Amino acid sequence: MDITDFLVTKAEMVNQALVNYLPSKDAKPKTLNEAMHYSVLAGGKRLRPILTLTVANSLFNIEEKKVLPAAVAIEFVHNYSLIHDDLPCMDDDDYRRGRLTNHKVFGDAIAVLAGDALLTYAFDLLTELEEDFTPSQVIQVINEVSQGAGYQGMVGGQVADIIAEGKEIGTKDLEYIHNHKTGALLKASVRSGAILGGASGKELTALTTYATNIGLSFQIVDDILDVVGDEEKLGKDIGSDIGRDKATFPSLYGLERSKKLAKENINEAKEVLQIFGDKAKPLFELADYIIARDY
Amino acid sequence: MDITDFLVTKAEMVNQALVNYLPSKDAKPKTLNEAMHYSVLAGGKRLRPILTLTVANSLFNIEEKKVLPAAVAIEFVHNYSLIHDDLPCMDDDDYRRGRLTNHKVFGDAIAVLAGDALLTYAFDLLTELEEDFTPSQVIQVINEVSQGAGYQGMVGGQVADIIAEGKEIGTKDLEYIHNHKTGALLKASVRSGAILGGASGKELTALTTYATNIGLSFQIVDDILDVVGDEEKLGKDIGSDIGRDKATFPSLYGLERSKKLAKENINEAKEVLQIFGDKAKPLFELADYIIARDY
Repeated sequence: MDITDFLVTKAEMVNQALVNYLPSKDAKPKTLNEAMHYSVLAGGKRLRPILTLTVANSLFNIEEKKVLPAAVAIEFVHNYSLIHDDLPCMDDDDYRRGRLTNHKVFGDAIAVLAGDALLTYAFDLLTELEEDFTPSQVIQVINEVSQGAGYQGMVGGQVADIIAEGKEIGTKDLEYIHNHKTGALLKASVRSGAILGGASGKELTALTTYATNIGLSFQIVDDILDVVGDEEKLGKDIGSDIGRDKATFPSLYGLERSKKLAKENINEAKEVLQIFGDKAKPLFELADYIIARDY
Repeated sequence: MDITDFLVTKAEMVNQALVNYLPSKDAKPKTLNEAMHYSVLAGGKRLRPILTLTVANSLFNIEEKKVLPAAVAIEFVHNYSLIHDDLPCMDDDDYRRGRLTNHKVFGDAIAVLAGDALLTYAFDLLTELEEDFTPSQVIQVINEVSQGAGYQGMVGGQVADIIAEGKEIGTKDLEYIHNHKTGALLKASVRSGAILGGASGKELTALTTYATNIGLSFQIVDDILDVVGDEEKLGKDIGSDIGRDKATFPSLYGLERSKKLAKENINEAKEVLQIFGDKAKPLFELADYIIARDY
């Protein structure tokens, strides 16, 4: 299989579903609706929903169509977090993916509310899973997403990141930040796919380890790219984290050791997939793909 | 029954539950946790959770203890909305309930994230209803809360309110704003109690009308108090809405007609309760209480 083709196909499926599930273009209030569309349809790798779909479909043979409400809901949660992260009171970023950030186009107030709306709508959407899954599965997925996104997960990591700004922090704190800020929602993406697939306890544990490891690798690679990448590739200001005096993996471990760390995490992610045999090939290659990004 | 005693007793029950359900004082990150506690425990009438509890308990005889996760979740959603509403990019309020607003104490970034965390945690909490109710009831309540809070409801109303600022709007737009900004979550509070109580379609319809009417009355009275009340009573700047050139019921209808409108809405709210007989007494008196606030 060609992982690039695989990812493109899945991303197209996700993009189509995002359009379908966003409120219709005519829904009121227009400004809110436009702000939601603007950020959600601004592109992106769609890594989280692809993970949900791939786990459910490749490992557990669940029709992707049925899993789409979960995949889309998680992408909405991811997009809300980006909109809020970019706000002047947070990272104060003017560009994301080469386009003006939400608040630069719609103003800070609408950006806050567009984020709020996407987060809230995600849970509405998750209830639609009821059509194809047991109520207990639906409730478990709502649990995963809320805990992955909430104070115990993503928001907690974001706060820890803000508090750490300008301070000297150690490798433990840095891992805490990333395991929560990025890792928690990635984990929820993978585990949601597994729950909808009816995974056993052992399978869920393996997939949780997979998710944690690719999550950390992903962040390490992001940090590395922030140092060595070029602006065009990332679509955001290079060195912006360093400019804001944020601790990064390269700043704490150095570039070479960071690369090695990313590689080790990916190896462990691939290792735990073995219990699934050949069915895990897409997830296996997806792990490799994460550290194969140019750096 | 004395409605004031009734409300005090219920509010105490809610306050205790809020403490119990908030993340423990030791939960990390400390700053986020403190910011969540600060706003949630700042007092307030607890009208929304009281409605949920009273509908479920008085009308349908469900133990209040069982309904508390829903009541608390809705109060969390209400508190998140207040934190975000107070932000400098929104209403830019320095005080709420006589205390500094969240962002004045913790900074804008933490305030945004504390709001995000409360909203997200609300959905986590709703899944706890599974212990005492059918999964289908739990999913219905999650639906009510997400739609009441989301772009179709509260957030939609907030956006419409922002867009209307400084513009001349008519009575229809004003009702739209309030039916969404305040009404939608009140409706979700009442309907969630009804769903957990196993209400029939007819009962749910009656209670929806009740909620819509007390919601609108509540807002009209708030607008009136903003004109004639004193700062101490509301704990916020008097005339602040007028200062920001916001349309209000008194500015569109005049004071006397606004009072009459509030009264008419309350009468309709009480009218529809008749199908429940004597069991509806607390909800009946609660409706009266809403327009009995000093003005």
